[in-house]
Amino acid sequence: MSEFTSLDKLGEFGLIRKIKETVKLENASTLVGIGDDAAVLEPGEKNIVVSTDMLVEGVHFDLTFCPLRHLGYKAVAVNVSDIAAMNAIPTQITVSLGISARYTVEAIDDLYEGIRFACENYKVDLVGGDTTSSKSGLIISITAIGEVAKGEAVLRSTAKPNDLICVTGDLGAAYLGLQVLEREKQVYLDNPEMQPDLQEKEYLVQRQLKPEARMDFIHELKELAVKPTAMIDISDGLASELLHICTQSNTGAAIYQDKLPADQQVLNTAEEFQLDPVMCILNGGEDYELLFTVNLADYDKIRNHPDITIIGKMTEASEGVRLVTPSGNAFPIQAQGWTHF
Amino acid sequence: MSEFTSLDKLGEFGLIRKIKETVKLENASTLVGIGDDAAVLEPGEKNIVVSTDMLVEGVHFDLTFCPLRHLGYKAVAVNVSDIAAMNAIPTQITVSLGISARYTVEAIDDLYEGIRFACENYKVDLVGGDTTSSKSGLIISITAIGEVAKGEAVLRSTAKPNDLICVTGDLGAAYLGLQVLEREKQVYLDNPEMQPDLQEKEYLVQRQLKPEARMDFIHELKELAVKPTAMIDISDGLASELLHICTQSNTGAAIYQDKLPADQQVLNTAEEFQLDPVMCILNGGEDYELLFTVNLADYDKIRNHPDITIIGKMTEASEGVRLVTPSGNAFPIQAQGWTHF
Repeated sequence: MSEFTSLDKLGEFGLIRKIKETVKLENASTLVGIGDDAAVLEPGEKNIVVSTDMLVEGVHFDLTFCPLRHLGYKAVAVNVSDIAAMNAIPTQITVSLGISARYTVEAIDDLYEGIRFACENYKVDLVGGDTTSSKSGLIISITAIGEVAKGEAVLRSTAKPNDLICVTGDLGAAYLGLQVLEREKQVYLDNPEMQPDLQEKEYLVQRQLKPEARMDFIHELKELAVKPTAMIDISDGLASELLHICTQSNTGAAIYQDKLPADQQVLNTAEEFQLDPVMCILNGGEDYELLFTVNLADYDKIRNHPDITIIGKMTEASEGVRLVTPSGNAFPIQAQGWTHF
Repeated sequence: MSEFTSLDKLGEFGLIRKIKETVKLENASTLVGIGDDAAVLEPGEKNIVVSTDMLVEGVHFDLTFCPLRHLGYKAVAVNVSDIAAMNAIPTQITVSLGISARYTVEAIDDLYEGIRFACENYKVDLVGGDTTSSKSGLIISITAIGEVAKGEAVLRSTAKPNDLICVTGDLGAAYLGLQVLEREKQVYLDNPEMQPDLQEKEYLVQRQLKPEARMDFIHELKELAVKPTAMIDISDGLASELLHICTQSNTGAAIYQDKLPADQQVLNTAEEFQLDPVMCILNGGEDYELLFTVNLADYDKIRNHPDITIIGKMTEASEGVRLVTPSGNAFPIQAQGWTHF
């Protein structure tokens, strides 16, 4: 006999009840959470920021190597990352799920365990959502709400020429983590007896499966008394995000290849896969680090910060968006983003 | 040569740009809309309500008889309906789409035309979203945000015994509209030469394809100076929604079969399809009318309102939730909701 429970048995309202029972509310601004037509928030004298992201099975995740618990965590983290990129503090999320028939109650529990763990970690309240069936696979759509003092939201459109371009952490690891996982999946499919040895790739795999939103850094910026002139989170890749800032701020930019931060595992693994490490860093995406610009006057506040790398500077729009190689050559940076319809 | 444009050609950012260009912002509380990591809202001294709904192709809609423009409109309307059911005024929405390869740019334009039309009609600002590809069919996930004065939100959990139970408009039409459309689809599949004659079913079909959120009635309630004790919108069906109010308010209820409001087309068409009209009214769903309870003291304010029908009264929880027939028999009302996993 199976130890799993079909969702059919539990029904929609049973599933919602189960979810509601395990959700704790932490934010004073949350008046009413799950269980009514809408959540009710009382933000006080703040601005509200709202962001939303959809993850689709087979497009954004592959459950053969992504445990549901990690997926739940990641789905929250990527939304929190958008709120962080506004210089705001996340306070609430809503979670909508489309679930196909092959999922059990236990599987959805695993997913919510990851969601709840992320909610605790980022101190956000799960206040509502929708659960529905789907014809194929799992769909997760999350909306995150955050607060920021009036006038303190940091947009993409407000960078200026001569601002310094900075990134947090290192780049390219999540993309190479995905390459490693896909190779191991293929090895496993060819020979199910083989046990993957991912020890040397642990950092890459973790960056892919369990990315963190850089909320820590938003608090850090306040301590440094630095307000970026523009900011965006790196979900599609550094090149794509830099182009967003430049387009929306009507500027150009120059970034320096030898300044781009990467972990040693990124460099080693790119070589192993015969991939150009610079392309991995520029276009890999899913690192959820922050790309931001600061006024030159703030240089002394950030120059020695261990988590900030200054990678270039903003320029006039007429100079374009360029990557400068160690030999001093400059190449235009191209847009990416999905074209996988 | 085809006159349609593949989404591949436009790309993700092209699609977002197209959407952004055609969106107008109307609400003073919208500081920043589409185009950043999150929207920025400045609600002032109000409460915020947030609701979300997901529509999945093949589960919630069938594009053989639902034009994309209508679908876009409906997707917004059902979210606005949730905000209305909180006694709040909708102000912003975010729209996330999962789009499969068989959709063209023109198809997504049609969808957004319906979304924009609904935004204008309900005076809400489209402030953000996510567009992604999907392996099968179209997925629409919308989050709606609204405002309500502090303390004026109406919950499901605050009805009291002896409160009057009221509904707006009439019920059962959207469900029978779906039956009509599915029959016509079958006729068409059997014989593509046949032109459907839907003239006598126009009201039913319109209620299914183009439901309206009862925002008009929320404004009306203010004019009547009536604050319901509890309220919910009727998406799953009268029976299911009444059970939600009773469970969450810890009450029972008695509703009277001969008071249930239905259009003559509902009664005629139920007979034609050999369906019990009472079951269509109780469990049909998707009418998006409002079910609400009011204190007896408000009876005189609502008794002659042409759009309100008093269908019963709340009771102690021990009396259960019952339907009283014209002959005076009482039957317990059962829960529904989807079990279509």
